[in-house]
Amino acid sequence: MDAVKIITHKRDGGELEDKDIQYLIDGYTAGRVPDYQMSAFLMASQLRGLSLRETIALTECMLNSGRILDFTSVSSLVIDKHSTGGVGDKVSLVLAPMARACGICVPMMAGRGLGHTGGTLDKLDAIPGFRTKLELLEIYNQVRETGLAIIGPTKEIAPADRLLYALRDVTASVDFIPFITASILSKKLAEGLDGLVLDVKLGRGAFMKTPQDARELAESLVHVGEHLGMNTIAWITNMDVPLGRAVGNWLEVEESILCLKGDGPEDVVAVCLSLCSEMIVLAGLTDTLEEAREHAQATIDSGRALDVFAKLVDRQGGDSSVIYDTTLRMRSVEPIVITVPLDIGGYVSDIDALKIAHASNEMGTGRLVMTDSVDPEAGIVLHLRPGERVQPGAPLASFYTRKEDQTERFARNITDAYAFSDNPVEKPNVLIDRLTVDGWNSAA
Amino acid sequence: MDAVKIITHKRDGGELEDKDIQYLIDGYTAGRVPDYQMSAFLMASQLRGLSLRETIALTECMLNSGRILDFTSVSSLVIDKHSTGGVGDKVSLVLAPMARACGICVPMMAGRGLGHTGGTLDKLDAIPGFRTKLELLEIYNQVRETGLAIIGPTKEIAPADRLLYALRDVTASVDFIPFITASILSKKLAEGLDGLVLDVKLGRGAFMKTPQDARELAESLVHVGEHLGMNTIAWITNMDVPLGRAVGNWLEVEESILCLKGDGPEDVVAVCLSLCSEMIVLAGLTDTLEEAREHAQATIDSGRALDVFAKLVDRQGGDSSVIYDTTLRMRSVEPIVITVPLDIGGYVSDIDALKIAHASNEMGTGRLVMTDSVDPEAGIVLHLRPGERVQPGAPLASFYTRKEDQTERFARNITDAYAFSDNPVEKPNVLIDRLTVDGWNSAA
Repeated sequence: MDAVKIITHKRDGGELEDKDIQYLIDGYTAGRVPDYQMSAFLMASQLRGLSLRETIALTECMLNSGRILDFTSVSSLVIDKHSTGGVGDKVSLVLAPMARACGICVPMMAGRGLGHTGGTLDKLDAIPGFRTKLELLEIYNQVRETGLAIIGPTKEIAPADRLLYALRDVTASVDFIPFITASILSKKLAEGLDGLVLDVKLGRGAFMKTPQDARELAESLVHVGEHLGMNTIAWITNMDVPLGRAVGNWLEVEESILCLKGDGPEDVVAVCLSLCSEMIVLAGLTDTLEEAREHAQATIDSGRALDVFAKLVDRQGGDSSVIYDTTLRMRSVEPIVITVPLDIGGYVSDIDALKIAHASNEMGTGRLVMTDSVDPEAGIVLHLRPGERVQPGAPLASFYTRKEDQTERFARNITDAYAFSDNPVEKPNVLIDRLTVDGWNSAA
Repeated sequence: MDAVKIITHKRDGGELEDKDIQYLIDGYTAGRVPDYQMSAFLMASQLRGLSLRETIALTECMLNSGRILDFTSVSSLVIDKHSTGGVGDKVSLVLAPMARACGICVPMMAGRGLGHTGGTLDKLDAIPGFRTKLELLEIYNQVRETGLAIIGPTKEIAPADRLLYALRDVTASVDFIPFITASILSKKLAEGLDGLVLDVKLGRGAFMKTPQDARELAESLVHVGEHLGMNTIAWITNMDVPLGRAVGNWLEVEESILCLKGDGPEDVVAVCLSLCSEMIVLAGLTDTLEEAREHAQATIDSGRALDVFAKLVDRQGGDSSVIYDTTLRMRSVEPIVITVPLDIGGYVSDIDALKIAHASNEMGTGRLVMTDSVDPEAGIVLHLRPGERVQPGAPLASFYTRKEDQTERFARNITDAYAFSDNPVEKPNVLIDRLTVDGWNSAA
């Protein structure tokens, strides 16, 4: 076998055999296939396309490049959720405890924020003492003993994906749906899942900017996931506007706790209840999504989900007292309040999620490259959201930053993200579309 | 500037600015742009295309990556020929002395054989003592003093091309016309030429297999060459059948000497006379190709071209006595003669140049990778050529090899390259088409 022949075949529009893809991925992981041949293959694949069969083979090779967790000895089914990343997306922090409180085993390997999107691990880092970096054996034991972990990736899981991602990042090969599919699913399959619920974000604040791209990615993920033996469901959810009111690491932990206490923003709660219902049905705990929804709601009403979250924080070395009383985590930055301009009345008609993400990142919540550090306290709280009534001079948003010399610009950037209307405006619909192996919206 | 942005722009079908191409080529030559980004750019360029403007910028950047010879102080014009490579193509060995004998300055940087094609340097190496590896200053002085050199590439000439060619070779980016154009012309422009005649080979034994590809390459070469200030003319010549009767390094030197003595095969002589006429007109020595042709013919009839060749051999350290009497170069391998099968009569209708090239390479004339050594004496002599009469039992071809255990297979392979016909067959036309800056066949 010969890498040049395989690259040539793809360059000329051919479909590769599984063994060709295996030769490249195994060879690349082992260092036999050099970066420059892999990057030529990545570019040829992007421009000629990869078929579903090729994407399945790629995913499987990347999965098999590392260890695969085995929870078959655990009595409950193992289900996880993955989001393609958004602004204010704290769903994992709420959903994982809810699902665990329903009896589902959730070995959630999460990510860090990069570019304009936040990351679950950065949010958890804002909880004093919380450890997201666990050894593989620790993770395995914690999941077996408690049924829940939210941790960072380990070097044993899908090493091919780690190598490939680093290469894609510097060779203009990031935003190609078959690569995104293989990257997400190889890591999720390595968790030893029975089922997976995908939250494909769509809109200005998401990687998928058009309904067509979001649907294409959802279809790719569901087809490949199902083909590789994992029950897979995808929701497309709105990321034109930020999710909830809080954007920033500790601010989002606080809002997650509000959700777990039954007091969260409508849109975050709606996503959490729907995705949790899907996980419950995938786990075989109820037959219908309606019944599942009651179970999910009950984990909040009873306080069980909050207790599960506190226990998770304890188990991973964090201070769980701040979960029950968030004021115990002292804040070192004071909020700056932006008020509604005096000539503005009516209603909030829109908030541009991407502008909010950029504003928040500049305050210190995000990173441009993986080695940047983030400020756990920086961020934005949107007091007014689309559809809400505006009073001139009332608080519009608050923000937290250590960059005191730039507060005027930050305030302007946040205000610029808002649009207003004299007439009443409908709240945007957060749950857009649902895909199962049977098709779009089946039994939603 | 950022390599990823440039690659992304090309990937998405955009046209690059000159400064983008310069950033990549300068950066790659200096080691700032890594192999993996360059190979992604090469693949994106192949699949999205490069415009004429981009190809000109690429050629110019590659040219400027190294030294450029300056012969403006030489009184005669500086003209060279370049062939895209074929089987039995010994034209350079005949043409360069002819052109020099007409008063043209010819600083010919030639190449080695790779794959199925032979290389001028390998042929010259078959002359005892001949040195093809000269320092840049030696080359410069020799050209100024004698008006002629045939040498190998030096490290100072177009280093970007050397680096890029090595990368293209292992990333499926060799056979893309804009890259071929930039590679050929950057090196030829570095010779400080006033004019260039291109011999674009077309057919089974050439890199360009279709008339369309050959014409596209010729057009690219002529347009880019002219744009960069070098008068450029291209001929498309036949490479369906081998050129001449000899294929192999010393065998081709012998045939070149036959040509210089006025006794060469019709097709080789026809190409040499036509290309030499072009060089003469480009050099401004005559106004018409007809007059030029008389000058060219006179260099053979008078023996001046042969003398020039002998002086070249002397100057570059070779034994020029073998030029006047080729039998002085003792042969250590005896020819094996293949005769026409007894059931075959009529005419030779075809000889497959690619099959002859493969047979010859297996005997030891060629190399698969650059570090392979070649056997100067191995090769094939085609006693019968297309159009010639066949007598059962008469000699068809001879071959020379040190691989005595494989002679039966070699004989079979050579015979397999032949096709016969009961009826008379026209000799194939060797000079197919001509392109100047004014268009195809202008004033041919």
